[in-house]
Amino acid sequence: MPPITAMSDKATCYPPAFRGRLPEERVVMAHGAGGMKMQRLIREMFLRYFGNPVLNRLEDSALLSLPQNRLCFTTDGYVVRPLFFPGGNIGKLAVCGTVNDLAVMGAKPVYLALGFILREGLSLAVLEKVCAAIARTAKQVGVRVVTGDTKVIEGSGAEEVYITASGIGVREGRIKLGAELVRPGDLILINGGIGEHEAAIALSRGSYRLRAKLQSDCAPLYRLIQSALGCGGVRVIRDPTRGGLGTTLNEFAERSGLGLVIDEERVPVAKAVRGVADLLGLDPFYMANEGKVVMVVARERARAIITRMRRFATGRGTRVIGAVVSKPKGVWLRTPLGALRRLLMLEGEQLPRIC
Amino acid sequence: MPPITAMSDKATCYPPAFRGRLPEERVVMAHGAGGMKMQRLIREMFLRYFGNPVLNRLEDSALLSLPQNRLCFTTDGYVVRPLFFPGGNIGKLAVCGTVNDLAVMGAKPVYLALGFILREGLSLAVLEKVCAAIARTAKQVGVRVVTGDTKVIEGSGAEEVYITASGIGVREGRIKLGAELVRPGDLILINGGIGEHEAAIALSRGSYRLRAKLQSDCAPLYRLIQSALGCGGVRVIRDPTRGGLGTTLNEFAERSGLGLVIDEERVPVAKAVRGVADLLGLDPFYMANEGKVVMVVARERARAIITRMRRFATGRGTRVIGAVVSKPKGVWLRTPLGALRRLLMLEGEQLPRIC
Repeated sequence: MPPITAMSDKATCYPPAFRGRLPEERVVMAHGAGGMKMQRLIREMFLRYFGNPVLNRLEDSALLSLPQNRLCFTTDGYVVRPLFFPGGNIGKLAVCGTVNDLAVMGAKPVYLALGFILREGLSLAVLEKVCAAIARTAKQVGVRVVTGDTKVIEGSGAEEVYITASGIGVREGRIKLGAELVRPGDLILINGGIGEHEAAIALSRGSYRLRAKLQSDCAPLYRLIQSALGCGGVRVIRDPTRGGLGTTLNEFAERSGLGLVIDEERVPVAKAVRGVADLLGLDPFYMANEGKVVMVVARERARAIITRMRRFATGRGTRVIGAVVSKPKGVWLRTPLGALRRLLMLEGEQLPRIC
Repeated sequence: MPPITAMSDKATCYPPAFRGRLPEERVVMAHGAGGMKMQRLIREMFLRYFGNPVLNRLEDSALLSLPQNRLCFTTDGYVVRPLFFPGGNIGKLAVCGTVNDLAVMGAKPVYLALGFILREGLSLAVLEKVCAAIARTAKQVGVRVVTGDTKVIEGSGAEEVYITASGIGVREGRIKLGAELVRPGDLILINGGIGEHEAAIALSRGSYRLRAKLQSDCAPLYRLIQSALGCGGVRVIRDPTRGGLGTTLNEFAERSGLGLVIDEERVPVAKAVRGVADLLGLDPFYMANEGKVVMVVARERARAIITRMRRFATGRGTRVIGAVVSKPKGVWLRTPLGALRRLLMLEGEQLPRIC
């Protein structure tokens, strides 16, 4: 819990309920941005109240042990603005995001539950387009929507839909994945250019005088991931969504207790993404992706995995971007001149409501 | 789909995307109110796009068949206003509501996933109270929060939290429940007075000059339901939340193809609930409950089931309120004078954002 840093005004009386937290501490957009503030909210609020061995792992899905089965269970809320953007919409995003969270755990996505929160005034034609996208994407992945719920809230202004998509997947018993399996010498792969989803969202908000051919990379990754898993030697997988590649790499480093050295110039960043990032003061390393996957793999299996992944449309750009070392710990970027600079966890916030 | 009822203005050009629906058709609060409008949205939008044998049953949870297991999977969004009300708060409500949806399917609730959507400006002290209530209620039921997600939306004004709680439960293989098992002669039970949740919410909004000792009935019902199931003879169970007892009974009648005759004066309605209902023009039969369960049971097992249920604090008021007949079909209220009047599905809306 953050300490009280200033108590100079003696007249201020904090009620006991706040227990060491400033009463005026309120939710800010950064609490949802995937950075330190969100991490702290999760650790100091949610884990404190709900903590248990499954939740404490803070993986993308909960790995559930039920008799004779290994299930994955995940939930994700989607509040992206605008609802429709180049390369996708909130419906497609909701299915991809949730399915990918199951896939990176090594699970086959099977069932979806959808909770809709609709703002009064939403046009049904818009809702229909969203539903059509959900149905199309679910069919593509082979996942079924098996239950749902709808609530409506008052409001005016922009058309708003929030979707919470929960998913259940089944994981084969023999698959073992986790940052604790990472070893020095392992290689780090990514399946393509970073930052495309966030850049596309930024552009589609239309408040910038930018023109660029940019599409969100929003895509389901289950088949791509399964094919990589088939090669063996995959240690851990994550989809670098909110918080971007930088956050995912830091999570790997923290959980493995090892160092990750990334060749900065090997990390693919599209020219258009670089342009948007420069203009808006964003760092592509922290920009959200919705169709990317980062894997740590055993060095000797890397070539086979890359060859297989490149056969998929979503995997054509697969390449090695770095390697695992025992020292220095943490995440390091090797610049084109050979210097190492530290890549930290995202501290502030990137764009709000990107997913 | 509703037909186009007026096309008099020749200058109006409907784009093809709307396919027979008026373009100005928008989401209204009644789309979330549990009545006909919500039914239509579910059938004409969600089932049309997502339909499959599991979802089409439109039960409170999806009964999932995974190898060697019978799982229940459910999701529910909570947008109740105010966040804190007599008898509970949005956190307690989220756990109870989701757990009860599993329990009425005969499942033991095991895992919860929580998706939070927080409005910027929400005080963390409020969020903490909500989390504490979730943790307390989850512990009471023996269910674990195993995964979650947080999003933040912009906004000002009232403090707002929306929670989507998804749950997984395990159902024993031998349990069979469903409206299709209902037979003429079966009895209909309820575990206490109706309308208390909605009446408490109405009062707590404070815009009415009413004073009454009223608490929401918000409670987890898993143990109560399991104890009833242990007696045998239970045909079908539902928790009459949004849409109230009237809606639940109509669902039973529709799915069983039989008639349900309810003795109006046997249905318990607290004096304070009646007072609130009269003042606000609400009908207790359509008012939401969050701690009530309606069961259809075999006549010969009814006494044993009632005796067992009355041992629980939540079941002390258990009683027979009516019986199943082969004719007339539909739901009928027998008035104190012996006349029968039809109890239809809720047509309009009750209060918005009651859960």
